Amino acid sequence: MPFVLISTQIRLETGPTVCGDEWSDPELMEHLGAKLTKTLGNNFQEYISPDPVRIILNKLEKQGYKIQAMTGLGQTCIWTLQKELESLYESCFVVEDEILGTGVPLQ
Amino acid sequence: MPFVLISTQIRLETGPTVCGDEWSDPELMEHLGAKLTKTLGNNFQEYISPDPVRIILNKLEKQGYKIQAMTGLGQTCIWTLQKELESLYESCFVVEDEILGTGVPLQ
Amino acid sequence: MPFVLISTQIRLETGPTVCGDEWSDPELMEHLGAKLTKTLGNNFQEYISPDPVRIILNKLEKQGYKIQAMTGLGQTCIWTLQKELESLYESCFVVEDEILGTGVPLQ
Amino acid sequence: MPFVLISTQIRLETGPTVCGDEWSDPELMEHLGAKLTKTLGNNFQEYISPDPVRIILNKLEKQGYKIQAMTGLGQTCIWTLQKELESLYESCFVVEDEILGTGVPLQ
Amino acid sequence: MPFVLISTQIRLETGPTVCGDEWSDPELMEHLGAKLTKTLGNNFQEYISPDPVRIILNKLEKQGYKIQAMTGLGQTCIWTLQKELESLYESCFVVEDEILGTGVPLQ
Repeated sequence: MPFVLISTQIRLETGPTVCGDEWSDPELMEHLGAKLTKTLGNNFQEYISPDPVRIILNKLEKQGYKIQAMTGLGQTCIWTLQKELESLYESCFVVEDEILGTGVPLQ
Repeated sequence: MPFVLISTQIRLETGPTVCGDEWSDPELMEHLGAKLTKTLGNNFQEYISPDPVRIILNKLEKQGYKIQAMTGLGQTCIWTLQKELESLYESCFVVEDEILGTGVPLQ
Repeated sequence: MPFVLISTQIRLETGPTVCGDEWSDPELMEHLGAKLTKTLGNNFQEYISPDPVRIILNKLEKQGYKIQAMTGLGQTCIWTLQKELESLYESCFVVEDEILGTGVPLQ
Repeated sequence: MPFVLISTQIRLETGPTVCGDEWSDPELMEHLGAKLTKTLGNNFQEYISPDPVRIILNKLEKQGYKIQAMTGLGQTCIWTLQKELESLYESCFVVEDEILGTGVPLQ
Repeated sequence: MPFVLISTQIRLETGPTVCGDEWSDPELMEHLGAKLTKTLGNNFQEYISPDPVRIILNKLEKQGYKIQAMTGLGQTCIWTLQKELESLYESCFVVEDEILGTGVPLQ
């Protein structure tokens, strides 16, 4: 399932948060309140949201994204998130369902 | 489930610990002993607790938060925590319960 | 199962992405669009792709690679990925299958 | 369950390792061979062990602590560990036991 | 189960890789092709292998070691690995086996 990389500079407690590159999913970016922006001095565009990173993480979590890793790089703090196909709960259920044939659709 | 970002500067063995931004859950922040503070030179407010980060991690764990990732950024050390909806134990049980119908409420 | 180390410099939102060393699997490298390159001043070769790291992560995920860890090092951001032998889903099924003998091949 | 933060400076292959702050569990600190020390220039005390970090990690693992995250901060390398209430093995068993009533105490 | 800390400097795509300290398991170190070396200016010895880190990770994985965490520290990139007692697959099987008594040795 697809990855999302978000990053913020210097401070965690305020925005903006960089949410994606030029080829990121426009629907997801709109949901995060991020706009395609060309920062002065860059030769590429990126999606930037005014929200602090905690708000963006909460929004991504509701879309099914889960934190895979996090790191600091100079003054930038970066999170790698991945959309999960199905949670452990659901995959366990599917297995049981396949065997016992209860067939109740989950969720 | 919601995220919490906590951070501490330079030393792990003493406080203070930054526990949240202006829009963080006031109830949780009070539980952590963090007060809304405007540091000189910042144009935003943040919740700061005098406790060392280990104490804050222990308190957050009792509220159901689990460490997702950790990183260093310049002189700041940052932890990302997320509240867990249900532990693996509980989700396993629910699946079994759904199938076998033992119906004993867990915990 | 084998590891892959990928890295990018300074910016997340554009390429290039370093995808492997001289002894990396040529088939996988071709799939990632990475070419064996000798950068000026280096006494070794490395596989470099023009794609941003998010695209490479998506491609690796489709090949069964999963993020193990991520870090920043100076101006370089590094991801360690590992190919998974079988997902949790599949191993759960195998266990159940061994017991109940439904013997339905998964996937 | 409680957290432990350990850290070492510059080199991984030798000690000392900082194992805790002033309020850390004295019994655990003694087990790690760490003594409460006030480093010159600090206004707080910390538990320091002469062992390299690998030895400390092995000792903590035997006490039931598991690595949650790791990071570098300037010249310091930091590990966050948490004591696990019960391993996955044990929680699986408890669930099965509740259903099948075999009642054999684990371990 | 025991930990291993490996590290490499500046570049990922070439060796050498530091694989252990003076007290590391000599058998494992020989398997990794690492020799006990005293670098000029150090007052301690360390095990160093000429292989790039990706090769060392692959070798450790075959010995049952799993990546726990990874970080960058100045110009050094560090991985913490731990030997796993048994994989999730195996522990699930053991539990089932204990209950149903199929008694088929796994693997």
